[in-house]
This record gives sequence, structure tokens and C-alpha cells, in this order.
Amino acid sequence: MTSATTAPGATKRGAVDGVGITDVAALAGVSPSTVSNVLNHRERVAAATIERVERAIELLGYVPNGAARSLVAGHSRSIGLVLSDLGNSLFVDIARGAERAADELGLSVVLANSDGRLEREDRYVELLTESRVRGLLLTLNDESHFREIAARSRQRGPLILLNLHADDGRFCTVSIDNEAGGALAAAHLLATGRRRLAFVGGPDSLQPIADRRAGVRRALASAGLAAVAEIGPEWINRADGWQVGRMLAPRIAAGEIDGVVAASDLLAAGIVQALAETPGIRVPEDVGVIGYDNNQAAWDAPVPLSTVAQPGEALGETGVRLLVAESDDPTHRHQAVRLDPTVVVRRSTER
Amino acid sequence: MTSATTAPGATKRGAVDGVGITDVAALAGVSPSTVSNVLNHRERVAAATIERVERAIELLGYVPNGAARSLVAGHSRSIGLVLSDLGNSLFVDIARGAERAADELGLSVVLANSDGRLEREDRYVELLTESRVRGLLLTLNDESHFREIAARSRQRGPLILLNLHADDGRFCTVSIDNEAGGALAAAHLLATGRRRLAFVGGPDSLQPIADRRAGVRRALASAGLAAVAEIGPEWINRADGWQVGRMLAPRIAAGEIDGVVAASDLLAAGIVQALAETPGIRVPEDVGVIGYDNNQAAWDAPVPLSTVAQPGEALGETGVRLLVAESDDPTHRHQAVRLDPTVVVRRSTER
Repeated sequence: MTSATTAPGATKRGAVDGVGITDVAALAGVSPSTVSNVLNHRERVAAATIERVERAIELLGYVPNGAARSLVAGHSRSIGLVLSDLGNSLFVDIARGAERAADELGLSVVLANSDGRLEREDRYVELLTESRVRGLLLTLNDESHFREIAARSRQRGPLILLNLHADDGRFCTVSIDNEAGGALAAAHLLATGRRRLAFVGGPDSLQPIADRRAGVRRALASAGLAAVAEIGPEWINRADGWQVGRMLAPRIAAGEIDGVVAASDLLAAGIVQALAETPGIRVPEDVGVIGYDNNQAAWDAPVPLSTVAQPGEALGETGVRLLVAESDDPTHRHQAVRLDPTVVVRRSTER
Repeated sequence: MTSATTAPGATKRGAVDGVGITDVAALAGVSPSTVSNVLNHRERVAAATIERVERAIELLGYVPNGAARSLVAGHSRSIGLVLSDLGNSLFVDIARGAERAADELGLSVVLANSDGRLEREDRYVELLTESRVRGLLLTLNDESHFREIAARSRQRGPLILLNLHADDGRFCTVSIDNEAGGALAAAHLLATGRRRLAFVGGPDSLQPIADRRAGVRRALASAGLAAVAEIGPEWINRADGWQVGRMLAPRIAAGEIDGVVAASDLLAAGIVQALAETPGIRVPEDVGVIGYDNNQAAWDAPVPLSTVAQPGEALGETGVRLLVAESDDPTHRHQAVRLDPTVVVRRSTER
């Protein structure tokens, strides 16, 4: 009985690639496992052999399969990062922080932008899983969707949730402390002498907004105060802010309100715009307004906005470090890291 | 003579994955090619068979190899896009445009951010090639590096250069007409009654800057004029603009210059800042200043800046459409598409 044997781990010619590792080995006059070593463990191969194999690879136009290579090498050298909204500078900061940490560890970051759409989140998780990344960092708006993804995913590496807090020990999360951010915003208005504060939030279903409101309440309570008004517009965009601003203007003009904490810069920008159109009300002289996010809306406003800045780069960096720690250590214990925001003071709260 | 046969296209158990397509086939009681059809050509398979195969896939935790799947299916469903600088909103716009076009075509876009570093450009081209994208869209600062990448790359799909113009018929490019943008900026200052214009550029090695200057010269020549001054600072950042602004201030105060075209918003913002610190010079009353890019610096400036906006989304969309056209059609002829920018008028050039 005769049988054709193939070297272990070799790809059969024509199966997928047209050109396989055995062709490269044949042309270079080495074994397929030597080719594999050139691709994955160069330190084990003599320089002259490396050169011969690389010339064969080039002549044949052989494309090493990244997925197979990464598994052979033990660990993929890339990390997947799915972002909710590239148009929001917070997510750009997260990407930059993740890239910086990955660079230091000799890893690459592959990005995808879901625009917050569930279908795209699913599609990109699958796509990045199929390209065998070492693990996935996901910024999602909805923790329950993360749990669905985690239950369904075939990703073998870590799945880490960014920008949402969850502390049930089933995966790592890195989030920004929104409650602390709300407290900082209110404390800043109190420190500039305002006492009659309104909080402008958004739908209660948004956990970050609810957390910011809790922080505002806490800071006010510490000063023996309570919010004069809490308003929950339908959404947190500029137009919502403008409507709220129109509504609040008479109360501000009457001296009932002297400070406004808005749950987003877009809301704050809309509020300031509505107030600028109201004769007799000046920002910051009559009312201080502080936003949240430190994005374009804060600079772009008629009066530059004080705001709460989120540590996006630190969030991305921390995510990458947790991912690598988890993928390197089977006994890793999941962590829920919370980072602190800071206040950026601009004209809208000057005193 | 006996020989063991394997179905064509089947992956051997244990070779890479632990679980292979033959395990799935065995458990589902179908042939490996039926499993392949379920993954790639569902329309050829009966519903009951699909269900059986999918249950087997789930039970075994089989991960179809995206790369192999895409090659079996004829075309990968993902496109790679390497961006030079995610911190620049132009590139975010390019990504969003590419995603919109890809969505319409049922494709996904995987992103990577090179931060303009050659080593990262190389690394991401290789990484995305190994994950078998359908083709690559690259925004690079340097055409010669693109040619090096094209010569060296094992990417079999299209390579398309974004944001740099090249018209030698060897690949498709999509760029924004910087010469037209420079001409638009100068024409806007002329239309608002300015006649004594200065152009503030940057190093001559930056092709976009040289093109913008050529456009300024052309617009002035059409009006029978020439630039009063052309200044080439070392780079195009805010600090460079501030130094130029200090230098130009006496000539502006003397009435020698009444309009400035700056080759970037950062330059323009620095210039306006230096002028704001000079007693007796008001922007826009004494001098109109227009920037280029329409980014944060334009909104953030002490006087909001008029600027030239680049059609980033259209650029990304066009890139995806060219990539798909090229990968679908072997007789495709390479195109060099140039898109037109527009002027955005803000306070800094009001009259």
C-alpha cells in the first residue's frame, strides 16, 4: 500500500491560495516547517536560509495566511476595536489611546465604525472574529446587546466592553465615571458662586445621562441644595437644547436659575444659542452653562462652553492592556475599571 | 493501490482550527461541499439541510475561516481603508463616506490609522492583505511610498490611492482639487473687496500646499493682480501661523495687506490669534483671513474662520465605488478622479 504524505501543517497547493507553503519550500529547497519558522520564528533559522525562503516567497507571490500564521505563532498580533461613532471625538480619542498602547506592545489595531447600529455591531464582531484578532474591544450603547454578542460570539479571545460599566465578573469593562462627571460640573458652578442650578438631561433610558444627573444631585446635596429644575428633553442634540433654552429663558430672566448643567455639549450649545436670542440674558453674567463631552460643539458655540472632558485616550489604552492581560493569563480575573473625567473651563461659566 | 481522498476545498481536521469543515459535515451527515454551500451559497441548499449544518456548526463551535470563505465565495465582503490621521476630521469624513457606499453595496469597511507613519502604513497594508480584504483604499502623504507599497504588496485586489492625485494609469486615485480650492479662497477675498492678498503656505515638499498656492496665483492673475506676499513657514501648524501673524502685523497695520489666504485652518487660527494681540488691527474689518480644511481650528479661533471645505465623504464614497468596479471588471481602466472643494463663509472674511 502506498500513500502520499503531506508535511504536518502544510497547506495543499491550490486548496485556497493557488500557491502554498509546499511550493515555497520546494523552490527554496527546504522543508515546509522551515518556511513556517521563517514566517513565525525567524530566530530559529539561519540568515542564508531566511534569504532563500524570502526570495521564493517573492518569486511565487505567496501570501502567508494571517489567520493561520497567528495561530501557529500562538497569538494574533492584532486587536479589533468596534467604535460607536467616529464623528464623536470621544471615540477618536479611544482609538488613538488603543493604538498607542498597542504600538508599545508590538500589536496592531483594526477599527470598525458601527454608527451605533446593532446590525453593524454584529457584522463587525463577526468579521473581526473571522480575521482572528487576539480579542475585541467594543464600544456599544447597550449592555444587553453586548451580552447577546458575548453569548453568540465564536471569538475565542477576550471581549472587553468599553464606555459602559458592568461589574458582574463575566468580562472586563472600562468606563468613565459619569456620576463623578455630573458632580464635577455642578461643583464647578457652585464654586463660581451659582446656587440655583438646573439639570438638563435626556431620555432616562440612557444610563450615562442618568448617572450624570445622580452626580449633580449628589454635589448639590453636599452643599445643602437641590436642583431648581430637572428637565429631560427627548434627545440630547442641539435642537433639543434650543427648545429647553427657550423654555428656561423666562425663569433665568426672573433670577430663578443662575446655572445650568447640560448632559451634552450639543444640548449646552443649543441652550446658549436660545439664550443669546433672548434680550436681557447674558452668558455667563446672568447664567453659567456647562456642557459635557468636550467636543466640537463646545468650541463652536457663540460663547465657548465650559465642559466635562472624558479621558478617551486613557480608556482606549486601558482596554488594550486588559485585553492583553486576559489573553496572556488564563487565571485572569475580570475587572471593571472606572476612569475619572475632568472639568475644562471656558467662557460660559466665567465669573 | 488505495488512497484516502478528501473533498476538494475541505480543511483537514486539526490543521489549524481544531474543528474543521469535515467534522461539521460528519456531524450533520452531509458532504463537506454541502457545508461549504451553506456557508457561501445558501440558495443552493434545502432549508432543512441548512438547519442541520448550522446546528452542527454551533455544537462544534466551528469558526468558518473568513479568508477561505471569501476566496471560495469569489470575493471578500470587506474593504480595507488606511487613514493618515483620525484626529483630522477630513479622514473621519472619508471613513464615513466609504462606509456609506460600502453599506449600500453590502460590504464592510475595516479601518486602520497610520498617523502618517511609514512603518505603520506598511504594517497595516500587510495586515489587511493577510485578512484578505477585497482591496485597499490608502490615504498616504507621499505618492512615492504608495508606489513602493504597490510594488511590494501581495494584495491581489485593487489598491486605490486617496487624497493624492496621480495620473499615470497604473492605479485609480481620488483626490480633491487643491488648485481649485486655492483659487476659490482667493476669489472669495476678491469678491469681498480685498485686493492686496498674502498667501501663507508651508514647505514646498507638500504637494497640496503647492497646488493651493498655484490656485491663489491663478485667481489673482485673472483679476490682473499678484500676491503682495507669499510666505512659506516651516510647517502648517498654529504656532507657525502665530509667527507669520506677528511678522505680517506691521504690513497689515500699514494697509499693505488686506487679505490673507492660509493653507490650513491651523495656520489661519495662529495668524488671527497674533493679529488679535496687535492693537489697532481688527479681523475682518482691517484684514480678511481665510483658512483651509474646515476643521476644529476654524470654529475654535477667536474669530470663527472662513475656510475651504474638502468633500471628504464624497472622496471615501468614490474610492469604494472605484474599488468595487475594478475588482469586478478585469478590463477596468484606471481613473484619476478629482473632486471640488467649497468655500464656507464665517466671520473672519465678513464685509
